[in-house]
Parts: sequence; C-alpha cells; structure tokens
Amino acid sequence: MSLSADWIAVDWGTSNMRAWAMRADGTVLARGESAKGMGQLTPSQFEPALLEAVEQWLNSERVTPIIACGMVGARQGWIEAEYANTPTPPIAAQATRAPVSDSRIAVFILPGVSQMAPPDVMRGEETQIAGYVSAVGASGTICLPGTHSKWVEIADGRITRFRTAMTGEIFSLLAEKSVLRHSVGTDIWSEDGFAAGVREALDDAEIITKLFSIRAGSLLDGIVPQVSRSRLSGLLIGAELAGTGDYWQGGDIALIGASRLSALYQTALGLAGVSARVLDAGDMTLAGLCAARAALEETQ
Amino acid sequence: MSLSADWIAVDWGTSNMRAWAMRADGTVLARGESAKGMGQLTPSQFEPALLEAVEQWLNSERVTPIIACGMVGARQGWIEAEYANTPTPPIAAQATRAPVSDSRIAVFILPGVSQMAPPDVMRGEETQIAGYVSAVGASGTICLPGTHSKWVEIADGRITRFRTAMTGEIFSLLAEKSVLRHSVGTDIWSEDGFAAGVREALDDAEIITKLFSIRAGSLLDGIVPQVSRSRLSGLLIGAELAGTGDYWQGGDIALIGASRLSALYQTALGLAGVSARVLDAGDMTLAGLCAARAALEETQ
Repeated sequence: MSLSADWIAVDWGTSNMRAWAMRADGTVLARGESAKGMGQLTPSQFEPALLEAVEQWLNSERVTPIIACGMVGARQGWIEAEYANTPTPPIAAQATRAPVSDSRIAVFILPGVSQMAPPDVMRGEETQIAGYVSAVGASGTICLPGTHSKWVEIADGRITRFRTAMTGEIFSLLAEKSVLRHSVGTDIWSEDGFAAGVREALDDAEIITKLFSIRAGSLLDGIVPQVSRSRLSGLLIGAELAGTGDYWQGGDIALIGASRLSALYQTALGLAGVSARVLDAGDMTLAGLCAARAALEETQ
Repeated sequence: MSLSADWIAVDWGTSNMRAWAMRADGTVLARGESAKGMGQLTPSQFEPALLEAVEQWLNSERVTPIIACGMVGARQGWIEAEYANTPTPPIAAQATRAPVSDSRIAVFILPGVSQMAPPDVMRGEETQIAGYVSAVGASGTICLPGTHSKWVEIADGRITRFRTAMTGEIFSLLAEKSVLRHSVGTDIWSEDGFAAGVREALDDAEIITKLFSIRAGSLLDGIVPQVSRSRLSGLLIGAELAGTGDYWQGGDIALIGASRLSALYQTALGLAGVSARVLDAGDMTLAGLCAARAALEETQ
C-alpha cells in the first residue's frame, strides 16, 4: 500500500531527525524518525539520509515539497540557511533550497534567527516559536529549556529579543565529566534538593564558588547522590532564572521542551513566584512547519 | 656515587609526584619527579612507585623518614589521612603512617583540611599554606589558583575559613568539551578580551546566560578565537572574584600557584582594585613539608 504525501515536514537536529508525511490540509498521514542527525553527516550524505526516511511517501509523478528546520541549516549542515535578524517573524519568508539529485523532491531549509546585540543565535527553536505564534498567540514570553535554553520575547508575531543559557550543557559536563561526577547519582530525584539549589541560586547567582560544596557535602556529610544531583540541577536552573528575570518577571510563561525538563522549569519558576504552562514541543514544531509551508506557498 | 638523604619530602598529587632529597638542615640535595600520580595507582602500587623515584637516596643502614602531602592521602589514595577541621593550623600534628614492606622507609602522609559549614575540603594546599605561615607570616589572605582554586583566611597561624572555586575545571570543560570549543583558540592571549570578561563578571556574576555569547560572537561578529578564549577565562575568574569578595576586599593577597595562572589572578584582582603578590608554589610546598618534618620530630 503506497501513501503519497502532499508535503513532508522535517525537524532535523544535531543528533536525530523526525519527519511527518502531511496532507495539504495539515493532517498527519505518517511519522518517521532517524538517528542520522546533522552531527554525523557530511553535506553529500543528507540527501540519502532523507530519502531513507521519507522515500515511501513520495509520488514519482510529481515533486513533493519538503520543509526542514533545525541544525540541518547550520554552516556544518547540508547547506547554510542564513539567519534572519531580530526583530523578525520566527519564520522569515525566504527558505534556502538544498541541492538534490532526486527529481521527486524539492527541499526547503528554514533560516535560524540571530540577534546582533548582545550576540545570540537560534536554529530550530524559531520553528517552535512559529508554532506558538500560529497556535497560541502573537505575543508572550517563551522559554525553551534544553541543552541550550532559549528565552524569547514575542510581540506582534515577531521575535523582539532572546537570550541563550548553556544550562543543560553545563549540567551534563559537571555531572558526567567533572569531580562532581563522584557525588551525583543518575536516577532518583529529590524535590527538596532541587528546590534548595534553585533558592540558593536565586538569592545569589554566582555558582563558581558554590558548586564544590556538592563534592564536599558528599565527602563530609554523606549527602546522598540523588540529593546532590538534584541540587546541582537546581543551582544551575536557579542561576539561569537569576540571569533572565527581565524575561519572566511579568509572569505567564510558555514552556516548550522535553516534558520532564519543562516540569523542572515550571517548578523553579513557581519557587520564584511565577506561573508557567507547558506546551508540547512536538506539537509546536509541527505547527511551525505547517506555518512555514503556508508562508512558502504564498511566496511561490 | 651514592647520596643519602636525612629525610625525603614528597608532593603527591592526582597527576604527578615530586620528591626532594633533604638534609636535616633543610638543604635540598636532589630532586625527582614521576608521572605516576595518585589518579592512576591502586593502594598496593604506591610503595613501588615511591621507591622507583627515591630509592637512590636511601641508606640501607637506617630508616629514612618520608613526608608526603596531597591526594596520596585521599580516600582513593595510598591510605586515607583524615582531615583536620577548621579552625586548625595548616599542619595538624598527627600524620598517617602508610603501610610499607621496605624496612628502609617510614612514610608519613599529611592530613587535608576540612570545614563543616559551608562544607569544604582541601588536600595538598594546606602544606603550601603551612609554607606561607612558616616563611611569610602567621596571618593574611591566600588565593591558590588551580583546577579548584582555594581562598583561605589565616589568623594566628591557623586556617580560620576557606572556600573552593571550580574555576579551572569549568574552564577546561567549556574550552575543550562544550560548544564553545569551536570558538576558543588554544594559544595566543588577548589582554583586552580577558579584561572585558573580568569586568563583565565583576559587574554581574551570573555566567550561565553570558557564556553562549562567546559562540554567537564568533559566528556573527567573527570574534577571533584568542579573544574568545581570553574572554571565557576572564568571565570565569571574574565570577570567582565576585563570589569571594569577602576574602579579597581587604587587599594584600598572596597568590600561590602556577606562575602563568597566578599572573592572571593578579591582573584580575588589579581590575577589581586590589593588589596581590605572587609566591612560588614549589617553594611554599617545600617550606610546608619542612615545617611538617619539624613538627613531626617534636612529637616523636
């Protein structure tokens, strides 16, 4: 049984790729996933990797448009899709055509968004933000927790400013590669340890001289690994919040990210006295790709 | 030609070991070094590693005392030398005897120092501090820059309080393992980049949301790697200073560490309006081991 998509939506990140076979009206016909992330591909390997994942959805009688977002458009990706500069709608009209040899596909890669002062960049998150604008509203404050969390201010359907926090990456490095790896566990969570860390960092965001107390606390006081791990997470997320108060102090934050991580941010924001709602990251990505598809059709 | 030491001083850290053949009057007769740091040895491998480095200095007619400091006394080392708790002289009288099978040596391992609130530990630095107390003075503020920098307050020859900053380890992780590795160079230094980072962090110690601007600055503004690297170093050392103002605001700091790193701290402290003098780390270690040897003789 062959399934023919009107167009195909692709979220292509550093470590994996997800694809949706779409009908013109926005119905999802099928889903696919591949572990061939941008991080392991050279430019010539992107087209075969894409075909491997979506070929069964193609119709040999016509060209199927494929709209892709994420690191696939980075300088080290398939082809660089230039940044759109703030203030900008999350999906600027122009997409970059990727070079393909298969005549059944036309691949459009969405640009990331850059900000000149202070310098900052995003790639992939702009599509989730486009989903928010299309499905939720044209203004608001969004936090996208992750390896590199983004805080984004939206007004009149445009990204007016944003800031990146390296919280997730620093957490992984400290928990896995630093001396703290001897003190932090991997599994069970401690709400109290997390809350203590968040409060400590909200009080004083300087963490460089606080982190080692996690190691010393396990050596001297026998603090158990799950408490240490939760406190480390709390300290880092608390420090992120301390550095982004100008974004969240107005309240009513939308969180878009992995559900477990979003819940942590919701808890931390609650400790700071601010309410936040969690939106599904996959839904926002797909809504953003649909909005991009609509924008692209208008310009064609 | 055989050389016979009255005693042997040993500084045994995680990644290497240094030894000095000493005369009773404190004269250095010879020096040795080994790459067999504590990090790569199991308990039974310490004695052979030690003999390999110092055997030529032993006299088979008598027992040569060996005084060792550093991670050799950690729980994962040769044998654990319990911490002395603050307030404490940097060298508490009791040293831990390491088990040996060679009858020509008696090995004494010096304890580290712990602090219960906030929890903190040091191991090795207490011997350099003992050197300071013995050679420079019985009170003052010492900064020992390194993988884990220590800030230490000395009064009446005792360590009254101290604090550890994970600055060096975090710098290495960010420069070598994080996304910033693409943006930071390895060699040439930029005084201006360093100073800008120090000033930025002294103004606001929250670094989690500032670090990614190093990556974005290189992508958008073409900031060269040496400037990025120097700014990263400045941001982290500046954040460390922001968290240790209660130690250095009185001025007149003694810096004990690798000479290049000590010079960076001297520059950063200068930007904060505070003068610091640099003391030789090797000299302080040896002076501390000599002080420990003298204390040990008194108690025997």
